[in-house]
Amino acid sequence: MTYDLWYWPGIPGRGEFVRLALEVGKIPYRDRAREEGAEALMADMKARGTVYAPPYLVAGDLCIAQTASILLFLGDRHGVAAEGEKDRLFVHQVQLTIADMVAEAHDVHHPVAASRYYEDQKPEAARRAEEFRAKRMPKYLSYFERLLAAGGAGVLGARWSYADLSLFQLVEGLTYAFPRRMATLGKDIPLTLALRDRVRTLPELADYLAGDRRLPFNEQGIFRHYPELDGD
Amino acid sequence: MTYDLWYWPGIPGRGEFVRLALEVGKIPYRDRAREEGAEALMADMKARGTVYAPPYLVAGDLCIAQTASILLFLGDRHGVAAEGEKDRLFVHQVQLTIADMVAEAHDVHHPVAASRYYEDQKPEAARRAEEFRAKRMPKYLSYFERLLAAGGAGVLGARWSYADLSLFQLVEGLTYAFPRRMATLGKDIPLTLALRDRVRTLPELADYLAGDRRLPFNEQGIFRHYPELDGD
Repeated sequence: MTYDLWYWPGIPGRGEFVRLALEVGKIPYRDRAREEGAEALMADMKARGTVYAPPYLVAGDLCIAQTASILLFLGDRHGVAAEGEKDRLFVHQVQLTIADMVAEAHDVHHPVAASRYYEDQKPEAARRAEEFRAKRMPKYLSYFERLLAAGGAGVLGARWSYADLSLFQLVEGLTYAFPRRMATLGKDIPLTLALRDRVRTLPELADYLAGDRRLPFNEQGIFRHYPELDGD
Repeated sequence: MTYDLWYWPGIPGRGEFVRLALEVGKIPYRDRAREEGAEALMADMKARGTVYAPPYLVAGDLCIAQTASILLFLGDRHGVAAEGEKDRLFVHQVQLTIADMVAEAHDVHHPVAASRYYEDQKPEAARRAEEFRAKRMPKYLSYFERLLAAGGAGVLGARWSYADLSLFQLVEGLTYAFPRRMATLGKDIPLTLALRDRVRTLPELADYLAGDRRLPFNEQGIFRHYPELDGD
């Protein structure tokens, strides 16, 4: 079965966490809104009625929204996760914590109104960025580092899971948005950076990461590089 | 098996979403931090190393964090959710969307720094509250209303699920925090309010909701009533 992935075209965003799992598992999918545009996405979403926001994955008569839920589904069906209740739940829990940090990374540049431009909320963004750099980044990143210290090569130890791919994407996004802060914090998270490097060089992802289907980060997405929001 | 629930004592917060599912299912549990205090919670969490934040549920050798993941587990194990992959994933997806709105309701009073007092971020909170009332509340609530219009008595139609309990708690929290705004929006969400009323009068929850284990909302929690953040 070829799945349909629907996500805003033009940004990696939350869709990229799903794409990485599809790509690493060589799971056939069509990236519908990149083929047909944002209006087709909005029309499809409206017709379905059950989706609050992209990304969502259509698999036959299943329509699954929420990034972590899509990954749970793909993990179960295609083995890009764990076997057994304990590991399944643990990978999902880590994924939800990654999702929490992704949402916070977005709100750094949109602390008061998702519906308005960054330029309309720059003073508030500056305050939120200070908190994010000083408190939230160390708290989240040291948590992931502790998991890897306990587990090994990945979140589950030697076995790969979709949470490893998501952690790679999170670190890439943070490094794009906050290069100075990540240069400082990097000293304290060697295992997390090593995981990032391992995913970056996975043979299964080589074609995808080198090709033009892999969307670069930009200032329309979740991870945005505004130098005034970064700092050592 | 008696489960251990760990969550900050003194506030309903995210722990309450778990409590409601435990209570409706008559599932035995101990509310550990309410028995032993916040310091015991912090010590337990630190000793485990795998939990980023409460709530978490300990079930034998399983330790599950993230509210939606705990509810997925309870739903599967105790039948307070759906059977079949499609309904299971759908209820989980709705739960994750409820979780997104809960996080936004928190950030209304803490738009720039979770680590600081509301009093240190009142101007920013006023701006975020305006956006939340004008854009986010109608968007989320009309989505839930559409789900109920399609489904029936609850998110899954006639069958109860933990997402119905969580939607009840969300509406209760929003009504506590934004009574004026909810009075206005209430006209547009009759099915959602009817669901709230049905859960409020469930025989299985009668003792719990009337008793003193049910914590009231307060200004330490996620849903806070600051009149200056409310409006018609």
